[in-house]
Amino acid sequence: MPSPKARAAALMASPEDAEAQFYEALRDGDLDRVMAVWADDEEVICVHPGGTRMVGPDNVRAAFEAILANGTIVVHPEHVKRVHVMGSAVHSVLQRMAVTTDEGQRTGWILATNVYAKTAQGWRMVAHHASPGAIDEAPDLGETPSVLH
Amino acid sequence: MPSPKARAAALMASPEDAEAQFYEALRDGDLDRVMAVWADDEEVICVHPGGTRMVGPDNVRAAFEAILANGTIVVHPEHVKRVHVMGSAVHSVLQRMAVTTDEGQRTGWILATNVYAKTAQGWRMVAHHASPGAIDEAPDLGETPSVLH
Repeated sequence: MPSPKARAAALMASPEDAEAQFYEALRDGDLDRVMAVWADDEEVICVHPGGTRMVGPDNVRAAFEAILANGTIVVHPEHVKRVHVMGSAVHSVLQRMAVTTDEGQRTGWILATNVYAKTAQGWRMVAHHASPGAIDEAPDLGETPSVLH
Repeated sequence: MPSPKARAAALMASPEDAEAQFYEALRDGDLDRVMAVWADDEEVICVHPGGTRMVGPDNVRAAFEAILANGTIVVHPEHVKRVHVMGSAVHSVLQRMAVTTDEGQRTGWILATNVYAKTAQGWRMVAHHASPGAIDEAPDLGETPSVLH
């Protein structure tokens, strides 16, 4: 039977696997699993919608810990666009989120850029940049040309 | 004498070169040079602070064209943090910008994640995600631990 470490590596055999684990761990409010998706690299970068930049696993963990202290995050990745280059992958993700406002439960949108690198431990996240979209209405995704040429 | 293409490739011998050209071209308001930094790849991704996502060079170009129609952009990259993985590089950049407000000229801050890939044409940008920071006060850059461990 493989060790837990080997199983984790097998589960992150692709950027898609790593991404699925990241969002599942956020929905479960499982900080250790959120951090297991990240590369073990002092240079990893994380920007949350508030505009704060975290560098290094300790700071990234502290920020996710603060976020998850408020409970699990109802987040679903949608409309993923991918750029694959040798040894790394960039995913642009529309994060659909349940948001509680003064007017009750609404749908919020966050645009995230997730960068994954192929490491000896499988595919791992090296950067996550999330910034605010709109409430209720999904942002313009640029999937059709915005001007005629 | 090298051809213009060869000169351009030589100038983007590193992610740092590509990044310097990108911001210089924005300051010059030179759309063609902004786009010359981007990889020739239908999957390139660009998110501007307004929260709109552009996919593909045509849409990315149209968005920069609209931005530069208002004039050049007084932007200076600062506090760059880098993650280098095989064949690609992620730069987290604090963009210091001159902003005209009702109260006159102010300094605005934008946090950008720039992803570069090594291509046959040198290092090229494959993703740019920019999101709003603060006016006047630089955002928390996470360069010191936010909690004690």
